Amino acid sequence: MHDRIRHEALHARVMSASEAAALIKDGMVVGMSGFTRAGEAMAVPLALAERAKHDPLKITLMTGASLGHDLDKILAEAKVTARRMPFQSDAGLRRAINAGEVMFIDQHLSETVEQLRRGQIPPVDVAVIEAASITSDGGIIPTTSIGNSASFAILAKQVIIEINTAQPLSFEGLHDVYIPSYFPNRMPIPVVTCDSRIGTPWIPIDPAKIAAIVITEKHDSSAAIRPPDDETRAIAGHLIRFFESEMAAGRLTRRLAPLQAGIGTIANAVLHGLIDSPFEDLRMYSEVLQDSTFDLMDAGKLSFASGSSITLSAEKNAEVMPHFDRYKPRLILRPQEISNHPEVVRRLGLIAINTALEFDIYGNVNSTHVMGTQMMNGIGGSGDFARNAMLSVFVTKSIAKGGAISSVVPMVSHVDHTEHDVDILVTEQGLADLRGLAPRERAVKIIGNCAHPDWRESLADYYRRALAFGGHTPHILEEALSWHVRLRKTGRM
Amino acid sequence: MHDRIRHEALHARVMSASEAAALIKDGMVVGMSGFTRAGEAMAVPLALAERAKHDPLKITLMTGASLGHDLDKILAEAKVTARRMPFQSDAGLRRAINAGEVMFIDQHLSETVEQLRRGQIPPVDVAVIEAASITSDGGIIPTTSIGNSASFAILAKQVIIEINTAQPLSFEGLHDVYIPSYFPNRMPIPVVTCDSRIGTPWIPIDPAKIAAIVITEKHDSSAAIRPPDDETRAIAGHLIRFFESEMAAGRLTRRLAPLQAGIGTIANAVLHGLIDSPFEDLRMYSEVLQDSTFDLMDAGKLSFASGSSITLSAEKNAEVMPHFDRYKPRLILRPQEISNHPEVVRRLGLIAINTALEFDIYGNVNSTHVMGTQMMNGIGGSGDFARNAMLSVFVTKSIAKGGAISSVVPMVSHVDHTEHDVDILVTEQGLADLRGLAPRERAVKIIGNCAHPDWRESLADYYRRALAFGGHTPHILEEALSWHVRLRKTGRM
Repeated sequence: MHDRIRHEALHARVMSASEAAALIKDGMVVGMSGFTRAGEAMAVPLALAERAKHDPLKITLMTGASLGHDLDKILAEAKVTARRMPFQSDAGLRRAINAGEVMFIDQHLSETVEQLRRGQIPPVDVAVIEAASITSDGGIIPTTSIGNSASFAILAKQVIIEINTAQPLSFEGLHDVYIPSYFPNRMPIPVVTCDSRIGTPWIPIDPAKIAAIVITEKHDSSAAIRPPDDETRAIAGHLIRFFESEMAAGRLTRRLAPLQAGIGTIANAVLHGLIDSPFEDLRMYSEVLQDSTFDLMDAGKLSFASGSSITLSAEKNAEVMPHFDRYKPRLILRPQEISNHPEVVRRLGLIAINTALEFDIYGNVNSTHVMGTQMMNGIGGSGDFARNAMLSVFVTKSIAKGGAISSVVPMVSHVDHTEHDVDILVTEQGLADLRGLAPRERAVKIIGNCAHPDWRESLADYYRRALAFGGHTPHILEEALSWHVRLRKTGRM
Repeated sequence: MHDRIRHEALHARVMSASEAAALIKDGMVVGMSGFTRAGEAMAVPLALAERAKHDPLKITLMTGASLGHDLDKILAEAKVTARRMPFQSDAGLRRAINAGEVMFIDQHLSETVEQLRRGQIPPVDVAVIEAASITSDGGIIPTTSIGNSASFAILAKQVIIEINTAQPLSFEGLHDVYIPSYFPNRMPIPVVTCDSRIGTPWIPIDPAKIAAIVITEKHDSSAAIRPPDDETRAIAGHLIRFFESEMAAGRLTRRLAPLQAGIGTIANAVLHGLIDSPFEDLRMYSEVLQDSTFDLMDAGKLSFASGSSITLSAEKNAEVMPHFDRYKPRLILRPQEISNHPEVVRRLGLIAINTALEFDIYGNVNSTHVMGTQMMNGIGGSGDFARNAMLSVFVTKSIAKGGAISSVVPMVSHVDHTEHDVDILVTEQGLADLRGLAPRERAVKIIGNCAHPDWRESLADYYRRALAFGGHTPHILEEALSWHVRLRKTGRM
């Protein structure tokens, strides 16, 4: 224990999870660690859900991003979560959100702590942070994610630490904690390359604020990534051929540009596709580091990766963690404010690859709302990256539900990324390069290159008839959302 | 002339506008100065339009933003403009865009030169830049705007300068030209306060590239700003009371935060409202400096203003220009890439005030498309500012066309600013503070506070019935755009 809690006075704060959870009162705002199912505090929220069975309470729950171990489901079913921000990906919580039982505030992941610091959203009462260890000065060494943990701990009135003994002490030195300056002026964030180290390897807080320490031994939930299939391989192929043509045109080099890839099967498959490509000495500046990050490193393709979390499959985790020291010099985990910061994303000139639920013939992208109404997960970091990237790419399969749904529609039912922020669209059918095109030109490319053959003629027909109404962005407003209405009524668009 | 062209060798390049215009060939990309009707080159484009009468040609025309002197109308009617970016506000060009005759690429104003430098859009063949003078080293001193002039001149193969002798030599020192570094790495943009000077007061180019100099004597077109009326005064009043409550809550000080205000009557009226407010020692970090900037300086309220252009009414221009030296120490004009840069906007923590065409009950904003199809002007800088501001405010009157149109609708017909990017909505009816609210909470506030009483019950009825369909963002897709359809068919929503 002395190597896990090196600040001697803090040993007296070790207690049970239920004792620690007693610090959380009804109505409080609780900021918990956890980003893409990595590094979440678990024992205290489970104790809270247990307590709620006989002592009902409601909290506002803020995290980095999604939680593992069904925590969001358990807390929602225990009716503990009244308000939730800034992201989630749990089926149980999703049901409660869409039923209007939980108020969900879906935010750009870089913005939550900015609003907290400015007092624009209610302050964090208690922070609950998973850590690998505490330094002799009381600095907190996070585990597999940082997310919003640093700012939650710094801003909270009280801090609960979950020391997770299942995570190696060698995580120390992996993280780089930097908080933007505020007075007298904010200064530039000094990240100028993916491997810029600008902060401390621990979260610096006054040890007096650490009100409780709970000892746990837990493993992260495994990533739920499906293996590449024919469609995702085709998407990767189109994108890699596009990168090759960009290199031929002198706009990219063999090193490409720092890569960001959203969480999920398709983005992971695209990165995997780079293993057998002419590109090398690649770098990542992303939010979540998935299996593909380590596969690319193993293949000698990836020189450095910066993220806010590491989320691996069970198999990859078993491969990587015993040899973590081999990867560590080529990794940094940063607060999500910094991994996703518009300033840094624009400066580094990223290639940002994110997944769309659907996009329309003019290039607007829906990332969040099924049928324009039902929340899926949230916008996450996709907006932080897409707006400021050098190349903003959105990928999706052209059809869903066995062909009943076209992912290319006349008008998206909800807009998360406007036409102004989308450069490249890719489906297994092909790629549309929208740079420098007017809406009417985009429509021809998107329908011709990205739509599934089963839906292409219907889209072309809509577009042709819309042209009769004229306009910069021709639409038939009576029909623009009719594909979604038909899907709801008949099960097919 | 020697004080206007201090580089002796360049005197030999002086020629007529039609001679200079002959450098522009069919199919070329031409980058012209001009931003919000300020500082546009005029003689050469007029000569080009004249030439096109007997010698048809088509060009891609890039500018900073909108042009004065009906230039966009004249060039469109002469069928010279085949492609146009990144912004316009001319009725004649608008007609051609909406008829599909001119391909218009509607971009965030900070992004055009970024795409140019990266070769993502076709390169500028000829730049045509209005200047007050040329230094002995060949540096170009712009006039009332910079816009994209610096990068156009630096990147173009050939440069044509229009020396405008009607603008005072004392403009020298007003401008601050900074181009982001690229190799080996991009470094932070060192603006840390509104008055940071980080570049040179001239556009630095190789004088050998200056292929022609045309002498002109022209005045900028006057701003077409309507005076405040009861509604715009009410909007200003709601916003100032909100600022007062933010100050009471400790989130703002008497200095507020650096202000950005979009072009137009409402934003100008809001700034005017600050003259009779408790706020003082204000600063602006905006794109266009309008009458209100100088009125606030005259009232002793505004300490410094940074922008990319100065666009004044005829009366204000007559007042300000004879005493320009009085204002100059408190002014900087920057390239629009810097005035609108996401990095700087986020760092400075702006209050961004922009005008909406319409917004919906969940806080999505349409800034560009009438009825979802007809382009008005373009997104301009509103996205650059709204996404990254500390407070993102959108203003509009609650009704239009004598009450036939509600500016608050069930679903906007085009999205330029998503729910994720909008903090505060204001109409003459009231203000909705959306920070930290879920969509269902926003709907209640927006309908209750911002909608016109004539439309409030219809909106509430839509929302109530949408709730029966459920979802995070309840909608009835069959009806979501029906208000717009009804307007088209009946002349009333």
